[in-house]
Amino acid sequence: MNSTLPAPRLFTFVGGNIGPWLVERSCRVRGEPLAEVSRVAIIAEEIPQIAPSTVWMLRGITSNERYVVRVEKTSLVAKQPALGRPAATWGALILLRKSAAWWALSQDERRAIFETQSRHIEIGLRYLPAVARRLHHCRDLGTAEPFDFITWFEFAPADAAGFDELVLALRGSPEWEYVDREVDLRLRQAEK
Amino acid sequence: MNSTLPAPRLFTFVGGNIGPWLVERSCRVRGEPLAEVSRVAIIAEEIPQIAPSTVWMLRGITSNERYVVRVEKTSLVAKQPALGRPAATWGALILLRKSAAWWALSQDERRAIFETQSRHIEIGLRYLPAVARRLHHCRDLGTAEPFDFITWFEFAPADAAGFDELVLALRGSPEWEYVDREVDLRLRQAEK
Repeated sequence: MNSTLPAPRLFTFVGGNIGPWLVERSCRVRGEPLAEVSRVAIIAEEIPQIAPSTVWMLRGITSNERYVVRVEKTSLVAKQPALGRPAATWGALILLRKSAAWWALSQDERRAIFETQSRHIEIGLRYLPAVARRLHHCRDLGTAEPFDFITWFEFAPADAAGFDELVLALRGSPEWEYVDREVDLRLRQAEK
Repeated sequence: MNSTLPAPRLFTFVGGNIGPWLVERSCRVRGEPLAEVSRVAIIAEEIPQIAPSTVWMLRGITSNERYVVRVEKTSLVAKQPALGRPAATWGALILLRKSAAWWALSQDERRAIFETQSRHIEIGLRYLPAVARRLHHCRDLGTAEPFDFITWFEFAPADAAGFDELVLALRGSPEWEYVDREVDLRLRQAEK
């Protein structure tokens, strides 16, 4: 990739039997399940040609932060690692949809639930730099998308217990009362 | 439309020589111009078949508010009129793109510029209920869009001077230092 080009923002997550990420387990946490697949491929920018083996394709786009204030952004930028670290061979794909009640809230109400009550950013910061993360938004892609958010995480096997702790802490927070669909896939990189 | 269906969120603005809105004038305010057209059609939901006369098509999606706090939302909901009022035969289509510097700001920094410094919501409220408005987001549609926002306004001819005042007040605000492309079309409904 030419380094003068802007970083890609649109990503397609392809579930099927190809791609470098092997699905270790897949949990329906809330709402409709997602069809089981054995592998996931993550493709930047262009919508790939659909392989015959594709079971689902989920699209998401990175965007500006919606809740993070300056002091939090500075901490995040200082601590958050890049994706693609050689030791971070385990992944998690957490798919979330929030309820209509969430989207009808005003900005200050959503921020209060997200951080003042749920400590979403503060909890996440505790697991940096172990866990690398990229958040993709789906809700404003223009068509009816099955999820509002696709979150992709990468970490070393030794940090998996910490990652589980992080997920459980958030899942128990007031913010999660507004989550009406959640699917949690855990993956590991196929041997090269 | 079946009233049990959710309201459409995705809209396509088609510039060409068909559609109910006649373009009275078109101003490039900042950045690249947009090709001149004589009429605009606004199409809900589906991407229309492209008429041979189509000069441009701009897509946008309504979404949750990004800056409005509860007290402001309550005032807006109480005062804002619906689109489609019979007397509101004049329209304005204001197309905006904000700079990379804007999108790199944290949420509190953007809110401070948007409202504390620029009084965007407070100024807008002064012109309610005369001016009806629908904001469409484009930046997260997934592909490279020429604008970040499409704003559509409808008002009666008698309220046009007030609308001009509103536009000038916002254009002079600190928020507009982050606008790097703006095109302003004024329209009126064709006789039926």
